[in-house]
Amino acid sequence: MFPSHISACKVMSLRTPSSTAILQDFDFIDHFGFFEDGTFKQRYLVNDQHWHEEGNPILFYTGNEGDITWFCNNTGFMWDVAEELGAMLVFAEHRYYGESMPFGQDSYKDAKHLNYLTSEQALADFAVLIRELKKTVPGAQDSPVVAIGGSYGGMLSAWMRMKYPNVVVGALAASAPIWQFTDMVPCSVFYKIVTEGFSRNGADCSDSIRKSWSAVDNVSSTEGGLKWLSNEFSLCSPLEKEDVLVFKAWLQETWVNLAMVNYPYEANFLQPLPRWPVQVACTYLQDSSLPDAPLLQGISKAVKMYYNYTGNTQCLRISETATGNLGYLGWYYQACTEMVMPMCTDGVQDMFEPQSWDFEAFSEECYGRFGARPRAQWAGTVYGGKDIGSHSNIVFSNGNLDPWSGGGVTQSFSSNLVAVVIQDGAHHLDLRFNNNYDPSSVLKARALELKYIKMWIEQHSLSNKAAAPCCL
Amino acid sequence: MFPSHISACKVMSLRTPSSTAILQDFDFIDHFGFFEDGTFKQRYLVNDQHWHEEGNPILFYTGNEGDITWFCNNTGFMWDVAEELGAMLVFAEHRYYGESMPFGQDSYKDAKHLNYLTSEQALADFAVLIRELKKTVPGAQDSPVVAIGGSYGGMLSAWMRMKYPNVVVGALAASAPIWQFTDMVPCSVFYKIVTEGFSRNGADCSDSIRKSWSAVDNVSSTEGGLKWLSNEFSLCSPLEKEDVLVFKAWLQETWVNLAMVNYPYEANFLQPLPRWPVQVACTYLQDSSLPDAPLLQGISKAVKMYYNYTGNTQCLRISETATGNLGYLGWYYQACTEMVMPMCTDGVQDMFEPQSWDFEAFSEECYGRFGARPRAQWAGTVYGGKDIGSHSNIVFSNGNLDPWSGGGVTQSFSSNLVAVVIQDGAHHLDLRFNNNYDPSSVLKARALELKYIKMWIEQHSLSNKAAAPCCL
Repeated sequence: MFPSHISACKVMSLRTPSSTAILQDFDFIDHFGFFEDGTFKQRYLVNDQHWHEEGNPILFYTGNEGDITWFCNNTGFMWDVAEELGAMLVFAEHRYYGESMPFGQDSYKDAKHLNYLTSEQALADFAVLIRELKKTVPGAQDSPVVAIGGSYGGMLSAWMRMKYPNVVVGALAASAPIWQFTDMVPCSVFYKIVTEGFSRNGADCSDSIRKSWSAVDNVSSTEGGLKWLSNEFSLCSPLEKEDVLVFKAWLQETWVNLAMVNYPYEANFLQPLPRWPVQVACTYLQDSSLPDAPLLQGISKAVKMYYNYTGNTQCLRISETATGNLGYLGWYYQACTEMVMPMCTDGVQDMFEPQSWDFEAFSEECYGRFGARPRAQWAGTVYGGKDIGSHSNIVFSNGNLDPWSGGGVTQSFSSNLVAVVIQDGAHHLDLRFNNNYDPSSVLKARALELKYIKMWIEQHSLSNKAAAPCCL
Repeated sequence: MFPSHISACKVMSLRTPSSTAILQDFDFIDHFGFFEDGTFKQRYLVNDQHWHEEGNPILFYTGNEGDITWFCNNTGFMWDVAEELGAMLVFAEHRYYGESMPFGQDSYKDAKHLNYLTSEQALADFAVLIRELKKTVPGAQDSPVVAIGGSYGGMLSAWMRMKYPNVVVGALAASAPIWQFTDMVPCSVFYKIVTEGFSRNGADCSDSIRKSWSAVDNVSSTEGGLKWLSNEFSLCSPLEKEDVLVFKAWLQETWVNLAMVNYPYEANFLQPLPRWPVQVACTYLQDSSLPDAPLLQGISKAVKMYYNYTGNTQCLRISETATGNLGYLGWYYQACTEMVMPMCTDGVQDMFEPQSWDFEAFSEECYGRFGARPRAQWAGTVYGGKDIGSHSNIVFSNGNLDPWSGGGVTQSFSSNLVAVVIQDGAHHLDLRFNNNYDPSSVLKARALELKYIKMWIEQHSLSNKAAAPCCL
């Protein structure tokens, strides 16, 4: 998809063109305590092909839960605006993901080793990295730094500006569900938006999925039915009775992923997919009144469109739903500790089996899995919850198709704490490369985002020129 | 000194008058990691005698390095304005001080137990405590909370507003040297201001002290001289040759303390003292041309004024310089980890023996003492250093007599990030009870501070009344 750009994330340069990714070890494993005083190597990618002048800006991607090269390749917006801004691009990897492992192979060993996998530590890593870049890269000392990120990376961008306004002059937080926490939005909002993405293509589409759960239950109740399902869905391993819950969870996650990456052109983010993949999936789900077997045949076709658009997939695995570039285990740990995001379904507002949010059960699950328990209130306390009006220079962008927009900031607080809503936009569409099929909404959003970024850079240059702090 | 007020910090009430101090254990020992999931009891003092109406403000003292009852008794400003504001007063104790010990008797055992003694953890304690108060005290849910603190407690107040603007609507940071860190102000500034405090009372005063160091060296070089010194200074234990460095350090700290508490009236903060104690000390130091022995007799008289103003002190101990309410060991640990405050003397700009700032030696000393090493750059990275212009609703007050003012914010950044300089003010004089001897400068400062506090409260009430966030 990105023939001319993809190489950019592989060949990096930091004053020495054609050098590769950089791993620096000035980052303390624990920024908030002094007993563990080890450091670790954090990976970051740099491109300075357009950064020729002292003091020019730095666009800093606040890496999220995965391999940073993958985010680098999927954040075309930064590459698209680099020349106009004369900007250096930096993509910083989040600790415990990709190659940035605080304890090497042991990083995920147990609760003790996982202890330093938190958003606060990641933000501190970014702050320290930026401080070091400014100190060591000639000409970067007074460069304004703009944080940019999508999804959890967008949350980190927003929080970076909130917690380290001395380090970043502003933040573009794309599809950042900073309110998807306890008591901030209804737990039902996420799956409701997933469902709307399908029902936009006809009520039969979402109704078919809503009916599919009992159809799976019915069909899977016999040995023959299990065999039929395994065959119909081309599963790599035959479905057993005890796999049915996993099978349904796998289907549910497939619909979620489809809603997230419902882009207006062929793309390969979570999977290689056609343009408007939800619409394509819905072409197989046009009659919700069908009996179980033909209904599930439609479901199977939709699912295969997601998993085998290339035609190269031999069989489907219900243990996998998307790219291997994401660090699922790490994110599971984060969700089990501070990133507690309540979700629920009722089967009425949404097309899923009813499931309430049960914090106690979740806490038990987390304790069993990681030996750590979630703290439901902490994210709201430390990152401000809905009470963020005193901050400045953040653009929150959300696509109305994106299920995460339900936990996002979609109304502006002030002229420098701004919400941008992108009609027909899925998960951080605005951060992707420009494309001929882009709807005008995303082109407008990108133009607005660029306008704000330029404004922050300008503000910084003005405040640098100003004399001593003004008086009362 | 405070006949009508001092009892207020002993008899506290939280909806139940005459109850005593409260210890709550909702605070996690580690807010930034999930492996250590214990909680501890944090002490806080509450007075609600003037807090009668729902939504009325809360003045929240962000406790510093000592017993909270001592700060409660020495922060008369809060008591003086409580009635006018209809405010509840809360004094929160800083972890690892007073009775707020995360690991009980073991809290100071070793580097592992001391690991959670950081300013970030303390700020998180305050944020969680305020959240809990708002949740549990009827009528407090929408109360605006104003952070108030002096010295390190003032730094915490400022940082509280910077890091948790969702929790506090503003902060009064009195005598808060938030810039007394590496590369922010010259390391010489502190002792220079101490010296000026003495030389204002005649150059002979500071010159006498400047000359006293070699006089001590000369006199202490003989057995007879040591005996004479021990006798002259009424030391509890006879001075030995190897104690001379400690003796001089004790003298140096005595001058520092005198400069800090150079209040315009009799007070008992670090020690019971007469009004303008530096002036009184200088009456004994009026001829710097005196030979060693009579020069040191003057020094001895000045020192005794500090240690024995009451006349009840039998003898002086060179191991003690001030009140036992401060947690010296805890502060030593904090200075040895994140609160690294470079200080130096040259004997020219100041009246002390030349001593350069040697970070490496300091680091070794800290490692030997605590098994932890200081991180010189961290405070600047996490708290913004000089780059704090994007914050709002903070008043920084400093007295020009206070040596800590050298690391303080003494010029306003904007109309809501304001510096107040108090002529003839020593260390957080403005936070003390009103007194007939107060100079007009401190009365003006308190009035201005009250004006800002009212403005923040008003802003909060307006924003609470406003509808949804405004649009672009």
